[in-house]
Amino acid sequence: MCSVVGIYGNENASKLAYYALFAMQHRGQEAAGISSSDGEHIKTVKDRGLVTQIFKEDHFKILKGNMAIGHTRYSTAGDDSILDAQPVFARYGLGEISIVHNGNLVNAKEIRDELIKIGAIFQTNMDTENLIHLIAKNYEKKRLKDRIIDAVKKIKGAFSLVILSRSKMFVIRDPFGFRPLSLGKLKSGGYIVASETCAFELVGAEFVRDVKPGEMIIFENDEIKSEMIFEPTPKQCIFEYIYFARPDSNVFGKNVYSVRKQMGRELARELPVEADMVVPVPDSGVAAALGYAQESGIPFEMAIMRNHYVGRTFIEPTQEIRDLKVKMKLSPIKHKIEGKRLVVIDDSIVRGTTSKRIVRMLKEAGAKEVHMRIASPATIGPCYYGVDTPTKEELIASRLSTEEIAKYIEADSLAYLSIDSIVKAIKDKKDNYCFACFDDNYPIL
Amino acid sequence: MCSVVGIYGNENASKLAYYALFAMQHRGQEAAGISSSDGEHIKTVKDRGLVTQIFKEDHFKILKGNMAIGHTRYSTAGDDSILDAQPVFARYGLGEISIVHNGNLVNAKEIRDELIKIGAIFQTNMDTENLIHLIAKNYEKKRLKDRIIDAVKKIKGAFSLVILSRSKMFVIRDPFGFRPLSLGKLKSGGYIVASETCAFELVGAEFVRDVKPGEMIIFENDEIKSEMIFEPTPKQCIFEYIYFARPDSNVFGKNVYSVRKQMGRELARELPVEADMVVPVPDSGVAAALGYAQESGIPFEMAIMRNHYVGRTFIEPTQEIRDLKVKMKLSPIKHKIEGKRLVVIDDSIVRGTTSKRIVRMLKEAGAKEVHMRIASPATIGPCYYGVDTPTKEELIASRLSTEEIAKYIEADSLAYLSIDSIVKAIKDKKDNYCFACFDDNYPIL
Amino acid sequence: MCSVVGIYGNENASKLAYYALFAMQHRGQEAAGISSSDGEHIKTVKDRGLVTQIFKEDHFKILKGNMAIGHTRYSTAGDDSILDAQPVFARYGLGEISIVHNGNLVNAKEIRDELIKIGAIFQTNMDTENLIHLIAKNYEKKRLKDRIIDAVKKIKGAFSLVILSRSKMFVIRDPFGFRPLSLGKLKSGGYIVASETCAFELVGAEFVRDVKPGEMIIFENDEIKSEMIFEPTPKQCIFEYIYFARPDSNVFGKNVYSVRKQMGRELARELPVEADMVVPVPDSGVAAALGYAQESGIPFEMAIMRNHYVGRTFIEPTQEIRDLKVKMKLSPIKHKIEGKRLVVIDDSIVRGTTSKRIVRMLKEAGAKEVHMRIASPATIGPCYYGVDTPTKEELIASRLSTEEIAKYIEADSLAYLSIDSIVKAIKDKKDNYCFACFDDNYPIL
Amino acid sequence: MCSVVGIYGNENASKLAYYALFAMQHRGQEAAGISSSDGEHIKTVKDRGLVTQIFKEDHFKILKGNMAIGHTRYSTAGDDSILDAQPVFARYGLGEISIVHNGNLVNAKEIRDELIKIGAIFQTNMDTENLIHLIAKNYEKKRLKDRIIDAVKKIKGAFSLVILSRSKMFVIRDPFGFRPLSLGKLKSGGYIVASETCAFELVGAEFVRDVKPGEMIIFENDEIKSEMIFEPTPKQCIFEYIYFARPDSNVFGKNVYSVRKQMGRELARELPVEADMVVPVPDSGVAAALGYAQESGIPFEMAIMRNHYVGRTFIEPTQEIRDLKVKMKLSPIKHKIEGKRLVVIDDSIVRGTTSKRIVRMLKEAGAKEVHMRIASPATIGPCYYGVDTPTKEELIASRLSTEEIAKYIEADSLAYLSIDSIVKAIKDKKDNYCFACFDDNYPIL
Ligand SMILES: Nc1ncnc2c1ncn2[C@@H]1O[C@H](COP(=O)(O)OP(=O)(O)O)[C@@H](O)[C@H]1O
Ligand SMILES: Nc1ncnc2c1ncn2[C@@H]1O[C@H](COP(=O)(O)OP(=O)(O)O)[C@@H](O)[C@H]1O
Ligand SMILES: Nc1ncnc2c1ncn2[C@@H]1O[C@H](COP(=O)(O)OP(=O)(O)O)[C@@H](O)[C@H]1O
Ligand SMILES: Nc1ncnc2c1ncn2[C@@H]1O[C@H](COP(=O)(O)OP(=O)(O)O)[C@@H](O)[C@H]1O
Ligand code: SF4
Ligand code: SF4
Ligand code: SF4
Ligand code: SF4
Ligand SMILES: [Mg+2]
Ligand SMILES: [Mg+2]
Ligand SMILES: [Mg+2]
Ligand SMILES: [Mg+2]
Repeated sequence: MCSVVGIYGNENASKLAYYALFAMQHRGQEAAGISSSDGEHIKTVKDRGLVTQIFKEDHFKILKGNMAIGHTRYSTAGDDSILDAQPVFARYGLGEISIVHNGNLVNAKEIRDELIKIGAIFQTNMDTENLIHLIAKNYEKKRLKDRIIDAVKKIKGAFSLVILSRSKMFVIRDPFGFRPLSLGKLKSGGYIVASETCAFELVGAEFVRDVKPGEMIIFENDEIKSEMIFEPTPKQCIFEYIYFARPDSNVFGKNVYSVRKQMGRELARELPVEADMVVPVPDSGVAAALGYAQESGIPFEMAIMRNHYVGRTFIEPTQEIRDLKVKMKLSPIKHKIEGKRLVVIDDSIVRGTTSKRIVRMLKEAGAKEVHMRIASPATIGPCYYGVDTPTKEELIASRLSTEEIAKYIEADSLAYLSIDSIVKAIKDKKDNYCFACFDDNYPIL
Repeated sequence: MCSVVGIYGNENASKLAYYALFAMQHRGQEAAGISSSDGEHIKTVKDRGLVTQIFKEDHFKILKGNMAIGHTRYSTAGDDSILDAQPVFARYGLGEISIVHNGNLVNAKEIRDELIKIGAIFQTNMDTENLIHLIAKNYEKKRLKDRIIDAVKKIKGAFSLVILSRSKMFVIRDPFGFRPLSLGKLKSGGYIVASETCAFELVGAEFVRDVKPGEMIIFENDEIKSEMIFEPTPKQCIFEYIYFARPDSNVFGKNVYSVRKQMGRELARELPVEADMVVPVPDSGVAAALGYAQESGIPFEMAIMRNHYVGRTFIEPTQEIRDLKVKMKLSPIKHKIEGKRLVVIDDSIVRGTTSKRIVRMLKEAGAKEVHMRIASPATIGPCYYGVDTPTKEELIASRLSTEEIAKYIEADSLAYLSIDSIVKAIKDKKDNYCFACFDDNYPIL
Repeated sequence: MCSVVGIYGNENASKLAYYALFAMQHRGQEAAGISSSDGEHIKTVKDRGLVTQIFKEDHFKILKGNMAIGHTRYSTAGDDSILDAQPVFARYGLGEISIVHNGNLVNAKEIRDELIKIGAIFQTNMDTENLIHLIAKNYEKKRLKDRIIDAVKKIKGAFSLVILSRSKMFVIRDPFGFRPLSLGKLKSGGYIVASETCAFELVGAEFVRDVKPGEMIIFENDEIKSEMIFEPTPKQCIFEYIYFARPDSNVFGKNVYSVRKQMGRELARELPVEADMVVPVPDSGVAAALGYAQESGIPFEMAIMRNHYVGRTFIEPTQEIRDLKVKMKLSPIKHKIEGKRLVVIDDSIVRGTTSKRIVRMLKEAGAKEVHMRIASPATIGPCYYGVDTPTKEELIASRLSTEEIAKYIEADSLAYLSIDSIVKAIKDKKDNYCFACFDDNYPIL
Repeated sequence: MCSVVGIYGNENASKLAYYALFAMQHRGQEAAGISSSDGEHIKTVKDRGLVTQIFKEDHFKILKGNMAIGHTRYSTAGDDSILDAQPVFARYGLGEISIVHNGNLVNAKEIRDELIKIGAIFQTNMDTENLIHLIAKNYEKKRLKDRIIDAVKKIKGAFSLVILSRSKMFVIRDPFGFRPLSLGKLKSGGYIVASETCAFELVGAEFVRDVKPGEMIIFENDEIKSEMIFEPTPKQCIFEYIYFARPDSNVFGKNVYSVRKQMGRELARELPVEADMVVPVPDSGVAAALGYAQESGIPFEMAIMRNHYVGRTFIEPTQEIRDLKVKMKLSPIKHKIEGKRLVVIDDSIVRGTTSKRIVRMLKEAGAKEVHMRIASPATIGPCYYGVDTPTKEELIASRLSTEEIAKYIEADSLAYLSIDSIVKAIKDKKDNYCFACFDDNYPIL
C-alpha cells in the first residue's frame, strides 16, 4: 500500500510530516522517508524500518524548510527491493525534485522500456523513478508544472502523488482516484495533504476536502491553486473500506468505521446464521462484527484478543507448539467460547491459511460451531493498483468454491458478502468504485 | 506487577517458559529472565527489555534441562533498580537455588534490617533476595523444603513464588492469595505453573486448578505433592479483575473478561446516564463497556482506537501538538462522535491526567457530552501487595471529591462503580478479596 | 579515497570481495557495498558503516554468482551524501549494470549539466552515476564495450573503475593512473582486481601486474583480454606513498613501506637535526621514522603509542580534559620522553591542529625539544583526484610560512621533505607522478 | 586481568573514572562498570561491552558525587559468568558498599564454603562477593575500616582493591603486590588510584607513588591516610612487564616499554642468531624487538602489520581462506620479507597455534628463515593470581620441549629468554617478583 504526506507553509514542515507518517504507519512498515525544502535545497532522510525507529531529533536539523513530503512503504516481495525507499530525489534540468507515490502503474514496464531505449537508467524498482525521468526528459517545456502534466498523462494506473520542487509542491490524484488523498488546513499555519485523514488529527489539521480524481493542486507563493488535469472517471478502491484504511479515517468521503459497520449489517441481512455470539477477528473484523451483531441481535463478544506485543520472535518453537504465529497474535477467550456457536467476522480471506488456523484455534478452545462470515466478496484476483495481494494461484477463492474453502478452513459454514450488499453499505454508485479483485473487472490494464 | 512461570518435567522447559513469559508480557515490560536446571547446575539468562528482545536461540543451549522458571518485571520508580531482574540465583549451603517472585512483602525492610544486623548483604532491591537469605541462613535444617517453609513463615505480604533447586521445583502462594497462580498440565509432558492462565494456551497446557492460598506444591522425582503450609485467609486482589489480568485469563476461578463485562452491567444499573453511545477507552475499558451497553441498551461503539504502533518516539513535538502522548496512543473516530453524548468507560482513574486528556480529545472531536463511568471505585490509597500505584498524594481521588474530579477532567459527569456492585459482579464473598486501595482496609501491613 | 575490488570466475566471488574490502577498509570507513552477478541478475547489498558491520551471512545468499565487485567509501563533507554508497546499480538499455569507482572526475559537473540538459536525472552525488548515464544514453552502440569506451573518453580526472554486467566484468584505469589498481590471480580459481595489493594476501591471490594507466581489461567467457584505450600519460598520486596506501601494499610497482622508509632516509639527509631519539607519530609516521633513524644514527623509539580502542565516545569531557581527541588516540611514553630532544616524524600536516596538539602533549610529557620532520612537502593545495583534502584556505601551509607554522604548532623546529628528495626515494621519473597538492602543478583541471 | 580505578574528591569523579577505564580498556574488554557516591547513596551502572559502548551521557546524571570507583573485566571462560560485572554493590550493616577487585583469590572456594556453611548466599562467581560477605558478617566491629582489615586478612591471593562506602574510599594492595596499583594527584582536584599509570595521562593526574604491597590507603574527610596492614613480601607479576601492561605505563616502579626493550636486549645477548632483520609481532613484540635490534645490530623492520580494524566478523570464510583469524589481524609485508632470514620477536607462546600460523604466514610470504625469539621463558603453568592463562594441559611448553615446539610451529629455530636475563633487564631483586607460570614456584597456593 504505502502512504504519502505533503506539508506546505509551516515552519515545522518536516516534523509535522513525521507525525503524519506515524499516524499512517499501518499503510506501510518496511521503510519510510521525508524530503524537505528550504527554498534553496531539498534534503532527504530515508531508511528501512518503522517511522519511530528511523528518525532522530538530529535529522530535523537537516530537514529544514517550510515544505516537506513523506512516505511509508509497504513490504513487497523480492530481494531486489531491499534498498528501495521513498521519497525519490533527483537533480535534473530545472533544479531539484523529490517525489512520493502511493499506488501502482500498470504501464510502468512499457514506460521503463521506452525510456531505457532512449538511454534512461533505473536505479530502483520504484514507479516513482519513471515519473522523474518523464519530467526530466521533457526539456523543451520550461515550466515544471507543464512537465508534470505531460508526465502524468503518460502513466496509467493508480497514483496519489506529492511532488516537491525547491519552491513548490504539487499534488495529483489519478483520474480513477484509486487511492485516497485528502487536503487539510493546519491550525498552526499552512496545508497538509495525506493519504488518510487520521494523519490530520495528530498534527492538528482541519479536513478541507478530498483531492479529486484527476485533480492537480499546486502550492506556490503561499497560495493554493487547483486544476482538473484529467477527466475524472472514479474507480475508488473498495478494499480501502474493507481492510486497508484506519477506522477513524474518512476515505472517499465516508468514515471507514461507519462503512465497515454498515457492511456488517448487510452481512447479517444477507447471510444470517443461528448462533450464540458474534466474534470479530481483531482488529480488522471489529467494526463489521459490531454491525452484524446490532443487525442480527446476536450478542457481540470480543472473544478473540489481539496481543499487544505482536512482533517477531526468532526462537524456534518446539514441535508441540502448533500454529504459533497465529497464536502469538490472537488468543481465544476459552471461557466465553466453550460450547458456543460462533459467527466469526473477518474482513477477507486471502490464502486461507490464517482462517484455517483461527478456526482450529477456536475449535480447540471448545467452540461448538464456527460460522465464518466475511465482510467482503471472495478475493479472486490480484490487485494492480497498489495493494500487495498474492498471485491468482495463491488466492484460495480462485481455485476453490466457497463450500470447498469452508471445508479447507474447517468451518461449519462460510459465506462472503456480495458486491451488491457492499454497494448498499456505501450508499453510493457502484460505478465509482473498483471491485476488480472481487469481480475481475479491471478498470485499466 | 510482574509474572512468574515454572515448568517441570519437559525437555523443552526453558522454551516453554519463554513462550509463557511472552503471553504474560503485559504484567511487566521492564526486564525478564529464565533459570533452568539440568539436574547438575542452574543457569540463568536475564536482562532489561521485552521477552522477544532479550532471548536469542543460543540462550536455549545454555538453558538446558527439564525444569525452568521465569519472570517478567514491571517497571517501578527509582534509578536504583535499573539493574534488577529476576530470577535471583544463588549458591548456598544446599547447592544452587533460583527464585522468582510476584508480589510484594510488607515486612521486607524489617527482615532485611534483621538479616543485615547478622551480617547479610543485599545486592539488589528485590524481595526475592530476602527469601534466599532466609533459606540460606537456616543451616540447621538439612532439607530445602523445611527451610523454605521456615522462610515463607517469616515473610508477610503478597507472594506467588516459584523456587528452583537443582532437582526440585517448589511453588508457594501466600495465605491471602493476593496474586493469582495456576497449575496446568502440559500436553507434551510435565507441568506448568503460571501467574495467568493465558500462558497455558500458547504452550499447549490444560488448566488443572489454581494453586490455593497458603499452599505449597512440590515437584520432585516426576511427582507432584501438595501441602497446606498456611491457614488460608483469602484476600485476592480485586484489581486483577479490574485492570491487570488479561481478559482471556481465568483468575481466582473466574474469567477476567466475563467479570469485567459483568462489572460493566452493574455500572449501567448503578450509574445510568442518558446518552447516544457507549465508548470504551481501549483496551482496558472494552469488556466493561460491552456489559454497560448490553445492560443499558445504549449502542456500543469502538469510537476510540488504540494505535497498533504505540511506542516511544524521541522526537520533540512542536508547540502546536498538544497532548501528544495520549494522541499517539488513542485516536477518536470523529465522524462517530460529532454531536453525540458519550458514556466513556475506563477501568480506573489514577492521577486524572490521562482522563483529562481523553475528555479534551473527545470534546475537540465534537462530542456534545462526555460522561465518564469508571468500572471500579475511586482509588484512594496505594497498593502494598505488588501493584505499582503512585503515592497517596498523587492519587487524585485521595484529594478531590468525585465532583471535583469531574470538573478537573472536564467531564460532564463522572461516576465510579461501588464496591458492592463489584461484589455482585464477581458473585463471591466480599471477604475473599482485597479492596484496600479502594476502601483503605489493608489486610496486612 | 575509497577502494574498489572486482572478482571474476570464482564461485565464492562475493565472499572474496568481502574479505578484500575488509583488507582495504583503511581507504574508506563510511559506507561499503558489493554487487554480484549470477549471469542472469545483478544483486546489490550496500549500507553505511564498516564492512564487518554491514554484511551478515544471509547477504551472501543474495549475492550469488561467480562475479562480484565491491567498494568502500571514504567519508566526505556535506550532509547531502548521507545516503550515497557504491556500487551504483542500474537497469538500462543493455540490461543490468553496476559500477564502482575510486577517484574523482574534474569534469563531473560539466557532464552532469550536459546530461541534465538532455533530460537525465541524478539521484546521488556520485560520479559513478555520470558514467552509467553516459553508457546508457549511447543507445546507437550495441556493444557494452564500445559504450564504455565512449563514456570513459568523455570523462576527465581520476578513475579506477570496475564495471559489472550480467556476464562480463570491465576494469579501467585513467590514462594518468592517479589511483592504483592491480591484477591478481586467485589460487582458488579466477581473477581479482583491487585498489591495493594488500587485498590479495587475505583472499589468497598472486600478484600478476598493475592495471596500466589507460588500460581496459575485459573478463568474459572465462577469458581475460587487455586493450589500451588511452595513450598513457602517467601521473600517479604521490600521496598514496606518503599516506594513503597500506604499508604492505605494492603500489605503482613499489612497496609502500619501503618507499616510506626511503623517504625517511632522505628526510634525515636533507633535514638533519641534533636529537636524542627519533619518534614516529603512529601509524602514518612509522616507516619514515625508521628510515630517518637508520640514516641519522639517532635511536628509533616508539615513544608515542596509538590506542587500540580508538573510536567514538559520546561522553562530553570535563573542562580539565584538554586535547581529548588526540589524547584518546595517541599516548606519549613519558618515561622515555622526559628531558629528551625528539625528532618527531609524521607523514604530512594539513590544518596544523593535530600537530599542535601532539607537540603540546609531548612538551607536557617533559620533552626538552620537539623537532617536527614531515615526510612530505608542505601541502598547499587541494586534491581534485579523489583525496579528500580540505579547501586551500584551511591548509595551513597555504597561508603560513614553514617558520610560522613551526611557531603555530609550538615546535622547536619544523621541516618538510622536498619534492626532489621524494623523487630520489621513489627512484623513478618525477614526471610519472602527480605532486599537484604540493607544487600546484595540476595535470588536468 | 581486569583493571580498577578510584577517584576521590573531584566533582567529576564518575567522568574521570570513565576516562581512566577507557585508558585501561586493554586490561579487560568483556564488561565494565562504575559506582559513585554523593555522600548519601551509592549508584552503580555496569554492563557487558566496551567502556565506550556501555556509558551514555545520561548515566553520569545518575553517577553523581565526588567519589567513584570503576572496573573493566577480562573475559574468562564459562557461561556462568555472562552476568558478572563489577563493581559489586551491596547494602549491609553499616550502610552501602561497592567494591572493585583486580586479582584472584586462591582461597576463594574455602572462604565461600565456610561462608555458605554459616548461611551466606553467592549470586555471582566473583571473588568480590566473598569480600563483601566477610565485611558484612563481622558485625561486632563497628568501624568499616576494622572490618575491611579483618576481611582482607582472611583472603589469600592477589588483590588490588578499591572499596567505596558512602563517605570514604579504601584502597588495598595484597602483601605480594601481584597486581600494580598507583596513586596520582588530579590537577583538577582530588586523587586517583588506578591499576596502570596510563590512566593518569588522560584525566590529567600526576603520578605520586605506587600503593605499596600490604598497604591500605584511606580517603576520608578530604584527607588521605596510609597504613601498612600486612608485612610486605613482594612478588610482583613479571607478566605485567612481559605482556599485560601498556608500554606507556609505569608499573612496579619501572616503565613497561623500557623494561621490554631491555628484555629485548638481553634476548639478543642470550640468544643471538644470524639474520637479515628483526621483526616484531605487533603490538606485543614491538618494544622487545627494538631492544633486540639495537643490541644485535640487525636492522629492525615493522614487516608485520597489525590491522586497525581487528574485530569480529561473522562471515564464514571459504575453504580457501586459511588461518583467517590471524590473517585478519596481522599482515606480512611480503616485499620486505621475501628471501630474507627473519628473527621474529613475540612476548610469549601459550598454546602455540597462533605462532604456528604466524610462521606459516611468513613462509608463504617468502621468508627464507624464521627464527622465533620469545621475550619470556616458556610458559609451563597456569596463573592463580588473576591472569587468564589456559590449563597446564593446553600450554604447549608443559608438554613439549623447546625443540619440539620449534618443529610444531614450523620455525627454523626457537628460543626463550631465561629468567636470569629477565632479572637483569628489570635491574631488581628476583625475589620481589612472581615467575610462577614460568618456574612453577608459586608464592601462595
Ligand atoms: N492483548 C490484549 N487485548 C486486550 N486487552 C488486553 C490485552 N493485553 C492486556 N489487555 C488488557 O489491556 C489493559 C491495558 O491496556 P490499555 O488500557 O490499552 O493500556 P493502559 O495500560 O495504558 O491502560 C489491561 O486491562 C489488560 O487486562
Ligand atoms: N489502531 C487501530 N485500531 C484498530 N484498527 C486498526 C488500527 N490501525 C489499523 N487498523 C485496522 O486494523 C486492520 C489490520 O489489523 P489486524 O486485522 O489486526 O491485522 P492483520 O493485518 O494481520 O489482519 C485493518 O483493517 C486496519 O484498518
Ligand atoms: N595502544 C597500544 N599500543 C601499543 N601496545 C599496546 C597498546 N595497548 C596495549 N598494548 C600492548 O599490546 C599488547 C597486546 O597487543 P597485541 O599483541 O596486538 O594483541 P594480542 O593480545 O592479541 O597479542 C600488550 O603487550 C600490551 O601491552
Ligand atoms: N594496519 C596498519 N598498520 C600500519 N599502518 C597502517 C595500517 N593500516 C593503515 N596504515 C597506515 O596508517 C596510516 C593511517 O594511520 P594513522 O596515522 O594512525 O591515522 P591517521 O589517519 O589519523 O593519521 C596511513 O599511513 C596508512 O598507510
Ligand atoms: S483491485 Fe481490489 S484492491 Fe485493487 S484497487 Fe481494485 S478493489 Fe482495490
Ligand atoms: S490494595 Fe488494591 S491493588 Fe493492591 S492487592 Fe489490594 S485490591 Fe489489589
Ligand atoms: S593532488 Fe596530491 S593527493 Fe591528489 S593526486 Fe595529486 S599528489 Fe595525489
Ligand atoms: S603466575 Fe605468572 S602471570 Fe601469574 S602472577 Fe605469577 S608471573 Fe604473573
Ligand atoms: Mg486482520
Ligand atoms: Mg487503559
Ligand atoms: Mg597519522
Ligand atoms: Mg600479541
